[in-house]
Amino acid sequence: MITIGENINATAKSVAQAINNRDTEFIQNRAKVQAEAGADYIDVNAGSGYGSQEQSIAAMQWVMDTVQQATDKPLVIDSDDPKVLQAALARYSGDNVIINSVTAEPERLTSIGSLAAKRRASLVALAMGEAGIPDNVSDRLAACDRIVKELAKLGVPTESIYFDALVLPISVDPSQGMITLNTIARIKQRYPEAKTVVGLSNISYGLPNRNIVNRSFMLMAAYAGLDAIIVNPLDTKMMGLIKVADLLTGNDPMCRAYIRAHRKGLLQD
Amino acid sequence: MITIGENINATAKSVAQAINNRDTEFIQNRAKVQAEAGADYIDVNAGSGYGSQEQSIAAMQWVMDTVQQATDKPLVIDSDDPKVLQAALARYSGDNVIINSVTAEPERLTSIGSLAAKRRASLVALAMGEAGIPDNVSDRLAACDRIVKELAKLGVPTESIYFDALVLPISVDPSQGMITLNTIARIKQRYPEAKTVVGLSNISYGLPNRNIVNRSFMLMAAYAGLDAIIVNPLDTKMMGLIKVADLLTGNDPMCRAYIRAHRKGLLQD
Repeated sequence: MITIGENINATAKSVAQAINNRDTEFIQNRAKVQAEAGADYIDVNAGSGYGSQEQSIAAMQWVMDTVQQATDKPLVIDSDDPKVLQAALARYSGDNVIINSVTAEPERLTSIGSLAAKRRASLVALAMGEAGIPDNVSDRLAACDRIVKELAKLGVPTESIYFDALVLPISVDPSQGMITLNTIARIKQRYPEAKTVVGLSNISYGLPNRNIVNRSFMLMAAYAGLDAIIVNPLDTKMMGLIKVADLLTGNDPMCRAYIRAHRKGLLQD
Repeated sequence: MITIGENINATAKSVAQAINNRDTEFIQNRAKVQAEAGADYIDVNAGSGYGSQEQSIAAMQWVMDTVQQATDKPLVIDSDDPKVLQAALARYSGDNVIINSVTAEPERLTSIGSLAAKRRASLVALAMGEAGIPDNVSDRLAACDRIVKELAKLGVPTESIYFDALVLPISVDPSQGMITLNTIARIKQRYPEAKTVVGLSNISYGLPNRNIVNRSFMLMAAYAGLDAIIVNPLDTKMMGLIKVADLLTGNDPMCRAYIRAHRKGLLQD
């Protein structure tokens, strides 16, 4: 499973403050420890609560420069503003990059899809359209269908798409666990060349022992066909269980990554 | 998920000794603590290493009587000898009973299937025939097909079957996790009226941190469609995660069982 470290995200107050203060040490430390903990990609979200687009762009470009000085890990550029994404891509020196994210909304699909095509970037695509997150599998799949079709026109191949199957809290609707899992499975059936991704912590919103629910859901999602996960790589139990997921789904043929995780102490009972 | 407590099984030395010594307290204690820990059924296996069939029957009947004095939980009668099963059923006062187990081998299917039909018992059916455990999904399904067909002739409806999808160690063959999981999913597709069951600890044979692998596999199997599990109900982490599995698969609509498990302390991080 591909892990995307989520810890440089300005929706967290401490990160927003560090970006506002241009606190290089804080941001670089977050990049380094995530890389050391085994994140395959580092997500970079510089936030959106700025006075002007120029400020948003300046914040994102500062974070991009700062993170790239600290780690060689590929980045996931995370913004809902196409101009911010474009400015971030202009500051990115790597080949391997993921843009996070588009939806099936036509305007965003065209502007962000064109950026991805030009840069040959991969693209996280949320399985939703204008009306918000569908509460059922078939509407999420319909959004994926629209996304595949429109991106193909722009020259983004389906192999470059990471479909986010989306997660709603099970405490609000008990069927939402199966809806996300079945969406993942159906996407993999319909578009085997595409990848699937989730950020799964929303599943446990409103419940006690959220970590246990999140980790359990990751294991089920792995069997459903999850390829990538947006995760806190410092959650050692989660990182250990991701190796167990790889083992059980046949993606660790010699049990090597599992044994390594065991030796590192990630598999504490 | 239906839990079947596995702790009265004469393949464990201490249990075999207790049965040999007709140690009522030991056996009754094992029955009581499993019931208190939340097992839905108690499996009763009195062993097979006796000098004569009469001795095997006497041992099983003593265990049956002893366990029934200690708990009202329904029993799973576990033996590969049809005569022992028949004698055990004769000593069983409950309505709800599961016979463990048949395979697709014609002789066993006829003798044990007839017992199940006469008693209207449910039946664990291993997805295998004469040649041992198939290493692939389609041969396991073919065994299930033969079992359904033969049992129907004897008057055992498919609703009464608990198909055991069978588990081989992933350390020997890395594809075995997916083979068991896909067998469970395919059985549920083909025979939605049947139930599925596994005893899953074999998956982690030869690996360190076996408990973590076993529990992770349970979660994946729950999403694949597992209805019942043969398990040590004193493994509190496993029992807690079974409630998480029910929650995430939509089988705990008001999150009540999950919250109860949380309050009981079964969901320690």
